[in-house]
Amino acid sequence: MTEQTSEPKSSNAMWGGRFAAGPDAIMEAINASIGFDQRLAAQDIRGSRAHAAMLAAQGIITDNDASAIREGLLTVLSEIEEGKFTFSTALEDIHMNVEARLKEIIGEPAGRLHTARSRNDQVATDFRLWVRDQCDAAINGLDGLIKSLIGQAEAGADWVMPGFTHLQTAQPVTWGHHMMAYVEMFARDLGRFTDARKRMNESPLGAAALAGTGFDIDRHATAKALDFDRPMANSLDAVSDRDFALEFLSASSICAVHMSRLAEELVIWSSAQFRFVAMSDKWSTGSSIMPQKRNPDAAELIRAKIGRILGATVALFTIMKGLPLAYSKDMQEDKEQVFDAADNLMLSLAAMAGMISDLTVKTDKLEAAASSGFSTATDLADWLVREAGLPFRDAHHVTGTLVAMAEDKGCDLPDLTLADMQSVNAAITEDIFTVLGVHNSVASRMSYGGTAPAQVRAQITRWKEALA
Amino acid sequence: MTEQTSEPKSSNAMWGGRFAAGPDAIMEAINASIGFDQRLAAQDIRGSRAHAAMLAAQGIITDNDASAIREGLLTVLSEIEEGKFTFSTALEDIHMNVEARLKEIIGEPAGRLHTARSRNDQVATDFRLWVRDQCDAAINGLDGLIKSLIGQAEAGADWVMPGFTHLQTAQPVTWGHHMMAYVEMFARDLGRFTDARKRMNESPLGAAALAGTGFDIDRHATAKALDFDRPMANSLDAVSDRDFALEFLSASSICAVHMSRLAEELVIWSSAQFRFVAMSDKWSTGSSIMPQKRNPDAAELIRAKIGRILGATVALFTIMKGLPLAYSKDMQEDKEQVFDAADNLMLSLAAMAGMISDLTVKTDKLEAAASSGFSTATDLADWLVREAGLPFRDAHHVTGTLVAMAEDKGCDLPDLTLADMQSVNAAITEDIFTVLGVHNSVASRMSYGGTAPAQVRAQITRWKEALA
Amino acid sequence: MTEQTSEPKSSNAMWGGRFAAGPDAIMEAINASIGFDQRLAAQDIRGSRAHAAMLAAQGIITDNDASAIREGLLTVLSEIEEGKFTFSTALEDIHMNVEARLKEIIGEPAGRLHTARSRNDQVATDFRLWVRDQCDAAINGLDGLIKSLIGQAEAGADWVMPGFTHLQTAQPVTWGHHMMAYVEMFARDLGRFTDARKRMNESPLGAAALAGTGFDIDRHATAKALDFDRPMANSLDAVSDRDFALEFLSASSICAVHMSRLAEELVIWSSAQFRFVAMSDKWSTGSSIMPQKRNPDAAELIRAKIGRILGATVALFTIMKGLPLAYSKDMQEDKEQVFDAADNLMLSLAAMAGMISDLTVKTDKLEAAASSGFSTATDLADWLVREAGLPFRDAHHVTGTLVAMAEDKGCDLPDLTLADMQSVNAAITEDIFTVLGVHNSVASRMSYGGTAPAQVRAQITRWKEALA
Amino acid sequence: MTEQTSEPKSSNAMWGGRFAAGPDAIMEAINASIGFDQRLAAQDIRGSRAHAAMLAAQGIITDNDASAIREGLLTVLSEIEEGKFTFSTALEDIHMNVEARLKEIIGEPAGRLHTARSRNDQVATDFRLWVRDQCDAAINGLDGLIKSLIGQAEAGADWVMPGFTHLQTAQPVTWGHHMMAYVEMFARDLGRFTDARKRMNESPLGAAALAGTGFDIDRHATAKALDFDRPMANSLDAVSDRDFALEFLSASSICAVHMSRLAEELVIWSSAQFRFVAMSDKWSTGSSIMPQKRNPDAAELIRAKIGRILGATVALFTIMKGLPLAYSKDMQEDKEQVFDAADNLMLSLAAMAGMISDLTVKTDKLEAAASSGFSTATDLADWLVREAGLPFRDAHHVTGTLVAMAEDKGCDLPDLTLADMQSVNAAITEDIFTVLGVHNSVASRMSYGGTAPAQVRAQITRWKEALA
Repeated sequence: MTEQTSEPKSSNAMWGGRFAAGPDAIMEAINASIGFDQRLAAQDIRGSRAHAAMLAAQGIITDNDASAIREGLLTVLSEIEEGKFTFSTALEDIHMNVEARLKEIIGEPAGRLHTARSRNDQVATDFRLWVRDQCDAAINGLDGLIKSLIGQAEAGADWVMPGFTHLQTAQPVTWGHHMMAYVEMFARDLGRFTDARKRMNESPLGAAALAGTGFDIDRHATAKALDFDRPMANSLDAVSDRDFALEFLSASSICAVHMSRLAEELVIWSSAQFRFVAMSDKWSTGSSIMPQKRNPDAAELIRAKIGRILGATVALFTIMKGLPLAYSKDMQEDKEQVFDAADNLMLSLAAMAGMISDLTVKTDKLEAAASSGFSTATDLADWLVREAGLPFRDAHHVTGTLVAMAEDKGCDLPDLTLADMQSVNAAITEDIFTVLGVHNSVASRMSYGGTAPAQVRAQITRWKEALA
Repeated sequence: MTEQTSEPKSSNAMWGGRFAAGPDAIMEAINASIGFDQRLAAQDIRGSRAHAAMLAAQGIITDNDASAIREGLLTVLSEIEEGKFTFSTALEDIHMNVEARLKEIIGEPAGRLHTARSRNDQVATDFRLWVRDQCDAAINGLDGLIKSLIGQAEAGADWVMPGFTHLQTAQPVTWGHHMMAYVEMFARDLGRFTDARKRMNESPLGAAALAGTGFDIDRHATAKALDFDRPMANSLDAVSDRDFALEFLSASSICAVHMSRLAEELVIWSSAQFRFVAMSDKWSTGSSIMPQKRNPDAAELIRAKIGRILGATVALFTIMKGLPLAYSKDMQEDKEQVFDAADNLMLSLAAMAGMISDLTVKTDKLEAAASSGFSTATDLADWLVREAGLPFRDAHHVTGTLVAMAEDKGCDLPDLTLADMQSVNAAITEDIFTVLGVHNSVASRMSYGGTAPAQVRAQITRWKEALA
Repeated sequence: MTEQTSEPKSSNAMWGGRFAAGPDAIMEAINASIGFDQRLAAQDIRGSRAHAAMLAAQGIITDNDASAIREGLLTVLSEIEEGKFTFSTALEDIHMNVEARLKEIIGEPAGRLHTARSRNDQVATDFRLWVRDQCDAAINGLDGLIKSLIGQAEAGADWVMPGFTHLQTAQPVTWGHHMMAYVEMFARDLGRFTDARKRMNESPLGAAALAGTGFDIDRHATAKALDFDRPMANSLDAVSDRDFALEFLSASSICAVHMSRLAEELVIWSSAQFRFVAMSDKWSTGSSIMPQKRNPDAAELIRAKIGRILGATVALFTIMKGLPLAYSKDMQEDKEQVFDAADNLMLSLAAMAGMISDLTVKTDKLEAAASSGFSTATDLADWLVREAGLPFRDAHHVTGTLVAMAEDKGCDLPDLTLADMQSVNAAITEDIFTVLGVHNSVASRMSYGGTAPAQVRAQITRWKEALA
Repeated sequence: MTEQTSEPKSSNAMWGGRFAAGPDAIMEAINASIGFDQRLAAQDIRGSRAHAAMLAAQGIITDNDASAIREGLLTVLSEIEEGKFTFSTALEDIHMNVEARLKEIIGEPAGRLHTARSRNDQVATDFRLWVRDQCDAAINGLDGLIKSLIGQAEAGADWVMPGFTHLQTAQPVTWGHHMMAYVEMFARDLGRFTDARKRMNESPLGAAALAGTGFDIDRHATAKALDFDRPMANSLDAVSDRDFALEFLSASSICAVHMSRLAEELVIWSSAQFRFVAMSDKWSTGSSIMPQKRNPDAAELIRAKIGRILGATVALFTIMKGLPLAYSKDMQEDKEQVFDAADNLMLSLAAMAGMISDLTVKTDKLEAAASSGFSTATDLADWLVREAGLPFRDAHHVTGTLVAMAEDKGCDLPDLTLADMQSVNAAITEDIFTVLGVHNSVASRMSYGGTAPAQVRAQITRWKEALA
């Protein structure tokens, strides 16, 4: 076969080197993963120990070799945990770093560990174990945040505040009700991480390079040792799949959206114009010169995290697009995205839980805001429908007239006299005053899931039991 | 209060109008949703009928009114289904279009339908019902695609083909095994849509504007009538939540990634250089001038769909970022994204199922490709470890030497003589030939989930039972 | 060659059909583009007319044929513009629809139009012309919005308002200054669309299928006829490139971010708690029952548009990822994304310009908010550094003490007496009062680009001249 | 004012601590930026030195203080560059770390550096300088890659290869033409980075916190000292703007798409089925057991980078969505995204340039592939139109018949005899053979930008001059 080398290398040299580093350094920089995959050390060692035990149980290696390997790996783990381990870029990744050190410690038996295994199923196993741990961390973090919110809801189950639509006062609601809305959201997140964890909880180990192996291995045994529910049922899929990471990232993005919404509210509520809440000093920064200023830094940073986590999600989706089976090197780009998203999610959950717990709520401000803007106009209209039998459209018309009257008088609806009201519609009775006023309003909304304090307390009780 | 109008309007006029349309037309164009939300007509009417029945059962409206409303709504639905309905942009959205027409048909009772309800919980209910239907459609579409793949796997459970890593031949695998890898992927998708459907299956109806209502409604009854598992437990959350759409989009994106990978393989396999498969004329386009040319158009379009679906996903995540509770108009931008993603997902699933079913597989090409490139070198090395007791590193060295020898002789590994082999390592016996050759190789990979035809057939059986 | 058809089709039939539509309908649905690319009709006809003229000028077709083609195409265009044209899905795309109709009108010469051309360079030309038009539309829309903002800035060059960081009052600024900040942003957008337009303004026409043509065509002539600066210099690139769409989408996304920020401010400023502005009725929706309520719908919708436009951007980036040269069918998915993004961008620009022009600014509210919160504490500290020679840290300490004193007294800084001040630092003189108070504060910030009304007016003048 | 603390903190304690770290550690972890913004050290010190010089020139600080500051900052820079500097998380960011150290070195004058400046304009200046440097790095990297491609194009201006559409052989093209297509793409990238650099080259310094300053500073002087074209014209915009980062990321994403396409081609061309090229050992990894195997790792990693860079782009767009003016802490999340995208872009450009330079092209394989599949059928049809005056449709029909004839005979078009051809159409003459055959075909495509070697060489010359 005639091969013709184009040799533009010399012409490139002619034009002068453009690279800060030589080709070897560039290849090493783009290829080596040890800079980030060292975070998988504990998972890697756990997987290898399970594999060694299984190989011995199946008679593929001797018990002595397996013992040496398993002990040696614990030594390596200690060295890493104690910061005594020197990671080598020349050894590319965590798997080879661990194996090379194992060889130094136990010698020849180290070479038998890789029997009936490949780096392809090894990294799939390590990363899956890591992401599974992060599902647990997310579930734990969500649990803490939900409890902070329930704490706030319990304290303020009957504090009245404006319920907004379009950031315009719509109807009065309770603080507890508002907090419990977030409990619902974060509880769904909890469900998503639980489902994702369950779906990903299958073992790739033993898929080998891609086709399985001719060694008589026991994949169910290693799956069990690693707390997986079962081995994955197709070896090609086992080394090609990154669904578990995509699903974790998707669930993280939804959770981050929820936090961004709560964070936005905290920022707005902390403004001088709202003053609904005061952030604790712990979660804000001040100004040496303007003592009243408290910048809600933590809330703003959490609001931004959806960007970062969504970015990581888009990154991995784009990376996985159009990759033929089985393993392609593109997939090495998966880890940094998931590491960064997971770190920022857990940090945000913890910070948000702290902020919520430490929040000072200005109940007088909340109630004053809820009481302005004719926020109980809907209650008046509903009373006309319910008690006076007016069709909706007529009830709306009457209400509009009364609001205009109150506006003219510079007062709110409950401040109108019965005579005022009857001048607009004769069917109105003294009973109308039982639905006006923000406390009456919220107390009346007893439909399931409504804002009435009794409803809110029922939900608090339900959730406390569910989470116990 | 002094209000000062800045009046740049006149100065704008001075500079000359820049808008093609007047303000009214622009506002209508940006504000009205009837252009797309008319797709929710059936869901809207179903929800309204359930609501009316409940209002009557609770004594909030009369049975006569409820009957009139429920009958009238069926009439409206017929008109829409038959294409006789004139949608009005002035009436903004599907809810008001339906209600206005209902009023024309039944008169005054139409006004009572909106009692104890708001457009906020109404649209949340409609859209949730629609997305729930799409989960069912996705599950159905996946079922069809999985069965096409199983059909291919059954036909070719023992056809040998190259197993690739990095698009380089690595080890031989079976066609059935490759097809079944995709079955695993799409089955996980099926699980995700099932979980999402279950999580979203709660009724927002009765949350009213945001706070619940003072009317004595029965949200459990409407939930049941609409086949929801239960009412949502927090009215603020009920009107603010779009998690169900985000989760549907995320699941769709993962599914689309899987299709993009299979589509990429079909494109590559159809090339003149690979010729592993021939696409059916139905799913490709030809050229009047080059009769052998078959462009894999459908596969390429499916490969592209992940872009579109991921784009929709990013869109909705970004839209929802930082929105305060409860309803904001930003959320009106949710529907077109989900409509487009769902339509393209369902179309892709159907097209992919058709393409897979209609595929012609060139088994001689597959086997020839699998047999080249010393693809059973790993088997040779594994034999040396297993049967001759060599440590891995030594086994690899021996194998490398034998491959080099075969390369020199211009033959593949099974073509070497026993004498050739023993000249490199004396421990090699006649038995070595039982592992060389691609059929031997794949048959040997009997580990659970491995590529051996027997393993593949076991998985086919398992899946056929599971899907039955 | 042995070809083995796997025939899972029959087994698929066995399992029962899963498709709502037969394969032909599915293929047509996924393959045909006429449903959306009919928007390119005018561009398609313009390109074809230029091509025909060039073919005649080069002697490749006769002048008579060229005249017939060019006249016939005008007829087709009229039919389309008048809504008399029947688009056919069977004819797949706009190019074939136009050509088929041309054939009906002028007969045989229609067949000569496609000489030395292919659908690949044709669609690249059409779409590029369309996107170029959208650059012009964006530039025009930005021009209108910028003028609205300048109108507001002129009206309120010296209206004082709070300057926020972290949504906390930081220092007083002027309304005009705030408006002009957006002028800077949108002017950069204008620059980006201008650059993008220039870069994309090269003609793909004549690249033919991918390799150029053996006909003696004149690509410079068609480029000139279509107002392109030059022909593209590589025919493979000409049919493979979608950079122009990606750059347009990227510029649109940045512009949409700017609008989302302004929209967010309008929403917050319209809240009952802020009341800085009142949106015109034209750009908001009201409530029949709460007459004071004005929902800032248009602002919220514009805030959401960044999601949609960013989604389209992500879609096309993902679609183009990893496509080999030259044309692949994946690229057909480019148009709908760009159409949707462009439509929404133009609509948002027009709506935002209208909203800004029609805005009522509550100057008393702005000034009251600016005057609270010791917003001139920085001015006091700066005076101490500048006039009394104090090091910064000491100046801050003195200021902090004075703020605390004012807080104790329940007054603001300008309300302290000179004696009060001198009790904290003896170097303070009567001159201090010239920097306290919000009007003094803003007037003092005369650094280039600062908030002083004189500076703002200078920028207004500069921009009016630049845009004239 | 009554403030009511909700005190869920104690109830949280009751439920047990959920946080791994106390609130202080969590806040520090989420808030401090020194972990990443230390990369801005050189820019920070450069900006501060320019600021100090200006303050002295304007008489705001003394020359002695300015000299001390400027010298001290050089000392700090040396310490950082030599790795002797201890970064402190307690000091939060690079600005405070540098200033604190400066104070230790020069004492009291350090406190005067921050006169008429704020961290808001300081970080905007630092980051802008950093991104500007990255534009230069990208331009430089693109220059190197373009030259590698031109080198390949020169070597193979007349090597014939298949031109693909849909990855199906369409028409023969030249290797040089294919390489030059990428030159066009990367040259557009070069233009985008150049435009972005120009647009961002304005100085935020002197905008102070957000409103400008009352000190008599000279912003034009600091702009000039920092090689900015001018100061930014609006101080609010100066501290709020991150367009420069968004535009850099967008340009990077487009460039990364181009690299992903070239990388995909390299992966496909390296497969056993194509064997068009052989990657250098430097840019691939091998297998100890299969010596012929060369995994194109670097190409695959580069193909994946678009995911990472697009992810960063999405992240920053999402972060900036809906942020009110001026500075919000969300914006601190900008840096890591840009750092990561820039690092990966530069690395990819260098690696791609190296890979292209070191590529071995198998010209015999290319030519054989180009010659199969009746790739010159179009040339035959064009000859019939041009020389025999046939209408296109008839020419296509004749060609189709001849292709079928060749297929029957098991030969390609040039192998048919003149008699064979004339039996189909009598107008065919001996001249037909001048257009058949791949070399004739490519030589004939002399249209501007076509694949003819002469055209390719003309473009090479043009580009070498342009880049010189």
